[in-house]
Amino acid sequence: MNEQLIRDITIKIMREMATPKEGGADIIAASPAPCMSAIPIGVSARHIHLCRKHMDILFGTGRELTFHKELMGGQFAAGETVMLVGKHSGTILKARVLGPLRDATQAEVSATDARALGIAAPLRDSGDIAGSAGITLIGPSGAVYLEEGCIVARRHIHMSPADANAFGVKDKDIVNVQTDGLRGGVLSNVLVRVDKSFTLEMHIDTDEANAFDITPKTYAIYIGRNHERVDNYGD
Amino acid sequence: MNEQLIRDITIKIMREMATPKEGGADIIAASPAPCMSAIPIGVSARHIHLCRKHMDILFGTGRELTFHKELMGGQFAAGETVMLVGKHSGTILKARVLGPLRDATQAEVSATDARALGIAAPLRDSGDIAGSAGITLIGPSGAVYLEEGCIVARRHIHMSPADANAFGVKDKDIVNVQTDGLRGGVLSNVLVRVDKSFTLEMHIDTDEANAFDITPKTYAIYIGRNHERVDNYGD
Repeated sequence: MNEQLIRDITIKIMREMATPKEGGADIIAASPAPCMSAIPIGVSARHIHLCRKHMDILFGTGRELTFHKELMGGQFAAGETVMLVGKHSGTILKARVLGPLRDATQAEVSATDARALGIAAPLRDSGDIAGSAGITLIGPSGAVYLEEGCIVARRHIHMSPADANAFGVKDKDIVNVQTDGLRGGVLSNVLVRVDKSFTLEMHIDTDEANAFDITPKTYAIYIGRNHERVDNYGD
Repeated sequence: MNEQLIRDITIKIMREMATPKEGGADIIAASPAPCMSAIPIGVSARHIHLCRKHMDILFGTGRELTFHKELMGGQFAAGETVMLVGKHSGTILKARVLGPLRDATQAEVSATDARALGIAAPLRDSGDIAGSAGITLIGPSGAVYLEEGCIVARRHIHMSPADANAFGVKDKDIVNVQTDGLRGGVLSNVLVRVDKSFTLEMHIDTDEANAFDITPKTYAIYIGRNHERVDNYGD
């Protein structure tokens, strides 16, 4: 509880400190940001979303996911994990299942994972799995071979309509954020997702977290919208 | 040979195209870059440098490294690899040895590797190993336990004195570069290393390559020097 409180206070202070400055000297100063604000960062480790049919095959007919940890937007980390197997010999022993069940099964891995699995998982928005990489999921009751469904998830920011209003952005906008530190920099082309069930948080994967040296103390600073939508290319 | 030629031509064209533009609209336009230029990117996978004493223990007394592949600045990838073992159960089966032998043994791993090894390898400039993580190296003839010597290498750009002159930078300057694409962005605090044996290349590790979706077609664009030296902090 104390940790959450400290985190909340830190965000409030950082937002206060991050209001627009005139004529700052750093690389970001001239960005077209309507306001600057601190965004908490959540690091997504590899995980899968399952449909009912695949849940039945992997964990037993009619089985329900068990609750492990609450996540944002009504989602939760389940107690269940599956093994991921690539096309050749690559395996990853544990990928967490996220609940609730969805219409389509989707595996989200890092590019490091994809390499270990020997698969060419494309960089995609969550849910955009057409033509993505095939992968085998193995659970205690059975195995599922997915012809497609394995992606590297595009970084994105969840926010409430009130947050979106404060930032001056809307759902599916593409924005840029900055992080500090020795491995700091700018993350461009970050997808914005707005929903009233969301709380403000940027989701990046473990490769991005490592590359930007993201710790629980690191926040992303919003530095402006892209002038045009940047879509997936060069899958 | 053709691939190298295409690469060289691409660099020349990109440099030509990347000369300073007045009043560009994007996030980078207002950066204090004296010039903008394309820098080839080299991705460093985990590797180790050995001293003579450790070479003797791991591969046999008096053994010399075999040549596998030429690298920049008189270095080469050796045919030899070692196994890395962390403090607990984490192991990485193969880490390439780079030659020639050095005064001090040093292992460079990604943060992903460090996590797999269960060690807290700090982010450091190459050679700065005081107080860094301990690790065990295992070769065909023996094992070495290093009290310190395992780091995550800070990103850096090798360049010749002529390159440094063209960029308006000097050895040990800290600069910022930009990359393009869906996972594009800015890499801040990049260390410049100047030596007449170097050819222009930015070295990043596999986490950074994955996070920025770096391919052999990706170049970094130089966008300016930092106003002050940013040093290691928060190891």
